[in-house]
Amino acid sequence: MSERRNVVVLVSGGIDSVTALYAARESYDIAAALSFRYGAKHEAREVPFARWHAAHLAVPHIVVDLPFIAEHFDSHLLAGGQEIPKGHYEEDTMRQTVVPFRNGIFLSIAAGFAESTGADGLVIAAHTGDHAIYPDCREGFMQSMADAIRLGTYAKTGLLRPFIGGTKAEIVTRGAALGIDYGRTWSCYVGGERHCGECGTCVERREAFLLAGVADPTDYASLAPLPPKPAARV
Amino acid sequence: MSERRNVVVLVSGGIDSVTALYAARESYDIAAALSFRYGAKHEAREVPFARWHAAHLAVPHIVVDLPFIAEHFDSHLLAGGQEIPKGHYEEDTMRQTVVPFRNGIFLSIAAGFAESTGADGLVIAAHTGDHAIYPDCREGFMQSMADAIRLGTYAKTGLLRPFIGGTKAEIVTRGAALGIDYGRTWSCYVGGERHCGECGTCVERREAFLLAGVADPTDYASLAPLPPKPAARV
Repeated sequence: MSERRNVVVLVSGGIDSVTALYAARESYDIAAALSFRYGAKHEAREVPFARWHAAHLAVPHIVVDLPFIAEHFDSHLLAGGQEIPKGHYEEDTMRQTVVPFRNGIFLSIAAGFAESTGADGLVIAAHTGDHAIYPDCREGFMQSMADAIRLGTYAKTGLLRPFIGGTKAEIVTRGAALGIDYGRTWSCYVGGERHCGECGTCVERREAFLLAGVADPTDYASLAPLPPKPAARV
Repeated sequence: MSERRNVVVLVSGGIDSVTALYAARESYDIAAALSFRYGAKHEAREVPFARWHAAHLAVPHIVVDLPFIAEHFDSHLLAGGQEIPKGHYEEDTMRQTVVPFRNGIFLSIAAGFAESTGADGLVIAAHTGDHAIYPDCREGFMQSMADAIRLGTYAKTGLLRPFIGGTKAEIVTRGAALGIDYGRTWSCYVGGERHCGECGTCVERREAFLLAGVADPTDYASLAPLPPKPAARV
């Protein structure tokens, strides 16, 4: 039998990455859970949940602060940026919430951190619903980034994407089976006291629980009817 | 004629990147020069030179602080790390000065910054002497990272490596022709008041001026005979 990989898991505190953290325990040794604070409107809600689950699983939790993003980057997702648009996650309006090359930045830092702590794998909770709007979520980007990380580290660090073949609803199904308390996860980009229920990430969250047939423990400020998914683009 | 690219130039304040900044003016519009502070022993010497040359050329200079590297990464290059080894830059001992995945981190942040400012190119002063020790300087890494940056940005940002076919001596020859004041550049990893003259980067600097036949304006603390270049490895 081959040795288990020793991995760093990127954990934002949302549904996908928290599930990835729990699932990773079954296949890997976990060196650390890594969260990023980059000035997003919702990070004060999200990161504490990442910390809670890491503590619950007795995994070291590292928070990396990236003040340069708030200082030099432009995005509606950031505190000081414009209002978060309502609607479906796959709408073009969601493009305003892009933080340029965010996944590239997160994965590069995680790769350096992994190499520095002796880990040889990175787990990211990318899934099939991620690709549409953000160029740094697309398959071509992810495969090139995986090559760059493997070739640019002594440990030949592997980029592991356990959910890449599945949907967010399948992630919720998996997490429910793992006993995850999804009441302690955060999705809403608006970052208020409660989930707004109407921004793209809230819509995606509500859809996922519905499709999974799992009770949604989230306290939403609005339960307005879910908008239709936009027609697929070429 | 095609439009000129609008580029961000990575400028540390060393010979290579300062030369890249001057040379870039001939082919591109320059959105900004970008420097990183990550806790390296020599950055207090190096970054002010980057700033000086950017100001001299009337190019905006952005300094990105990366406090997480000093906090969470391990390297002799960092303040608080062990002593910088003496000897030839291509020796295995130089491996201790690796900051894990540093080029991946710098390039990712530069890609996000470029996308955020409307630039569509990144210039990095990589050259043929860079590859030996650091995995994130090797050709395979650079090509994958270039793919990741092109595929992960709306602007299809290009990674430009004007010096990749040449040596550091050829960079010095080019820079001398461009009239660059190399007295206002920094190489020494030790980061003292003067260049030490004996660490890997000082040896490389001294060699480059000698081979280029360009007068070396540097004030070295030691002019000990240059160590021989180690035998080539497979």
